[in-house]
Amino acid sequence: MTNLTAEVVSIGDEMTSGARLDTNAQWLSQRLGDLGIDVQFHSTVGDTLQHNIDVFRTAAERVDFVVATGGLGPTRDDLTRQALAAVVGQPLELRQSALDHITSLFSKRNREMPSRNEVQAMFPVGSQEIFNPQGTAPGVDVAFDRQGKRPSRVFALPGVPAEMKRMFDQTVAPRILESVGRRSHIEHLVMKFFGIGESDMEHRLGEMISRDRIPRVGITVSSATISLRITAMADSPEQCRELIRGTRQEILDRVGELHFGDGEDFEQYHAVRRELDRRGQSLVSLELGNAAKLAGWFASLGKTATYRGGFCFADLPELAAVFAVAVPSATQTLLEKTGADWLLVVDAYPSLEVEAEEPLPAAEVRFVVVGPDGRTFSTTSRLGGHPAIVHARIGKAALAWFRTVLARESSTADSAAATTP
Amino acid sequence: MTNLTAEVVSIGDEMTSGARLDTNAQWLSQRLGDLGIDVQFHSTVGDTLQHNIDVFRTAAERVDFVVATGGLGPTRDDLTRQALAAVVGQPLELRQSALDHITSLFSKRNREMPSRNEVQAMFPVGSQEIFNPQGTAPGVDVAFDRQGKRPSRVFALPGVPAEMKRMFDQTVAPRILESVGRRSHIEHLVMKFFGIGESDMEHRLGEMISRDRIPRVGITVSSATISLRITAMADSPEQCRELIRGTRQEILDRVGELHFGDGEDFEQYHAVRRELDRRGQSLVSLELGNAAKLAGWFASLGKTATYRGGFCFADLPELAAVFAVAVPSATQTLLEKTGADWLLVVDAYPSLEVEAEEPLPAAEVRFVVVGPDGRTFSTTSRLGGHPAIVHARIGKAALAWFRTVLARESSTADSAAATTP
Repeated sequence: MTNLTAEVVSIGDEMTSGARLDTNAQWLSQRLGDLGIDVQFHSTVGDTLQHNIDVFRTAAERVDFVVATGGLGPTRDDLTRQALAAVVGQPLELRQSALDHITSLFSKRNREMPSRNEVQAMFPVGSQEIFNPQGTAPGVDVAFDRQGKRPSRVFALPGVPAEMKRMFDQTVAPRILESVGRRSHIEHLVMKFFGIGESDMEHRLGEMISRDRIPRVGITVSSATISLRITAMADSPEQCRELIRGTRQEILDRVGELHFGDGEDFEQYHAVRRELDRRGQSLVSLELGNAAKLAGWFASLGKTATYRGGFCFADLPELAAVFAVAVPSATQTLLEKTGADWLLVVDAYPSLEVEAEEPLPAAEVRFVVVGPDGRTFSTTSRLGGHPAIVHARIGKAALAWFRTVLARESSTADSAAATTP
Repeated sequence: MTNLTAEVVSIGDEMTSGARLDTNAQWLSQRLGDLGIDVQFHSTVGDTLQHNIDVFRTAAERVDFVVATGGLGPTRDDLTRQALAAVVGQPLELRQSALDHITSLFSKRNREMPSRNEVQAMFPVGSQEIFNPQGTAPGVDVAFDRQGKRPSRVFALPGVPAEMKRMFDQTVAPRILESVGRRSHIEHLVMKFFGIGESDMEHRLGEMISRDRIPRVGITVSSATISLRITAMADSPEQCRELIRGTRQEILDRVGELHFGDGEDFEQYHAVRRELDRRGQSLVSLELGNAAKLAGWFASLGKTATYRGGFCFADLPELAAVFAVAVPSATQTLLEKTGADWLLVVDAYPSLEVEAEEPLPAAEVRFVVVGPDGRTFSTTSRLGGHPAIVHARIGKAALAWFRTVLARESSTADSAAATTP
């Protein structure tokens, strides 16, 4: 199988001027990589027709697949349709099916379609539509002939991330697979890990993260959480899932002790909630120092019997003053007043007031869990890193410690239960 | 003055593969825009020598200034120096001054310089160094001859954001100004605003945000906070500051009532802290629902007499239970127990569990301020927006309401003082 290549093109003055951060290119690069396609270039260009034509022509000459975002709106600044027509040397024509969809979206919102939106139903002759279930901008799918090489394929999608992502997954990815004669189905599974650096993870996974592996395993890191993304392509969804199951087990055999759950958006606080739900127990958090990560994460779960509140203070005496108790008994008092089963304490988040953007030197942070019957489990970690992520890393390390305590407790309880006649 | 143009180039497989999000290109685009230079393209390329050569050649042909990041490390993947040498057709030579700096950085860290780092002191013949005060990778500044046009100038900087930013401000920006015969000094001031949308702000500023204005005023938005960035170029820092003062006043005349402070990193919670410090008063926050923004923001200030703690619950009954009081008196009890002067309540942050990435419909949120003597000031807003920013917007609206209450209180107090003999 020859090496297939791609380029991601982002269109809009708001990107070239720096008014907006382009996150589409990263997302598309990951997805194309999942398909086994080597993304070689990103190009960003403003709303100038000739520049768009130049960028599309260069891209279509040098790679097999071009995926572009932006420039498909109804205004005069939106030039992607014209640029593509110029590149393939075809006029634009009105497609009734696209126009009907746009009109129906407006009538669903009880609005008349402005006449300028008609332009969104114009396509270069010979191109295919890419259906947009959410918005008025259909995408354009057009082939570009190249001398001596297979034609390249250009997919133009809207810049709105939610629309772009759905259209890529629903239509573009299957068309890419079909065009290169690959398996017709594709499925993903994301596994989440905490407690290891990226390079150690890569080392332990070894050849599993090779780009040639089937199914492919991709690694990404976000604020000290590692995601492994398994992508399986096969002739049926069942076969995809079977492949994923096998690879998932191989990964668990290597790094299972660091795995806390599956799913793109699954975080440790979801894992904690699940475990507490299972036990019918509840938690409060106490965060001291310069951040309140746990309070924010658990609050995002909404009202739940599991999480009973977040308390955030500069230091322990501030908490003690609220309940008018001595400092040493403040945490125990907090647990009693809230009626929760567990208290998780971060003591303390460091200040980030250092030289801008320099990594924060590692500092000692203590994590304390106070459990039923007032038993206390504490540990100290040395944690540092980039200021943008160090507080999140500390909050996550606190959750990892709490998960460790829960696991120990449950194995103790199990063995106690096992030895009780 | 002719229109000067630029391209930003980002180098590294970690960017083309989507493993890392490129934020350098956005920052550089804003800075180049501040200098009055029109950024027309961004290009991202992996660690492949021929691709780097192609991208640099295309960029140098089509714009006046190219600013690149990445590929200046000591490993075999770092190809920027070789690519630039190939593009200008000059060999690489060792620069003793650069080597001395690299060696001295290692000896400061009590480490021997690995021999592979020597390559970081290699420069294309005829190029200039760009000093890197923080790291071992000096930048490269090289001119590229173009037929019939002024030569283009290529600046290659390391990919580490903190190093890149400092080198751009210290060396690249002054060299760009010098090369185009512009004023020799440049100063920035960022003014911050809350309570208005971007398009309304643009409308009220009118011609002030024209790209030709001197000094130039740039507008950016981050989670509903608007930043206006004034950039003045003149023959001395004093003249720059004089220009900035005048423009700042013009802006205040138009939108002064929405202005809450100056400085890139100055946020509303800093403004609140400053005002409470001035009064010698203190605040606690109570956040209900699905977020804990205020707790996080105020915690980041560290221990201060101003902020006495953050309390986060699903709803008011949860708070009432902690203090074993009836729900209606829970907020008053909280204020008394903490001994703070003011309580700011967000009631409540909505759940974000909607269709992924679709804008959240506007929902009613109540903001309550309880002040000294138990007086209560409340307001209700309808707030929605993109899930990534809607909770921050609600927290910021709460701070805006608190600032309004403080301002009213102080004008009431002033007028009371004025009428008292």
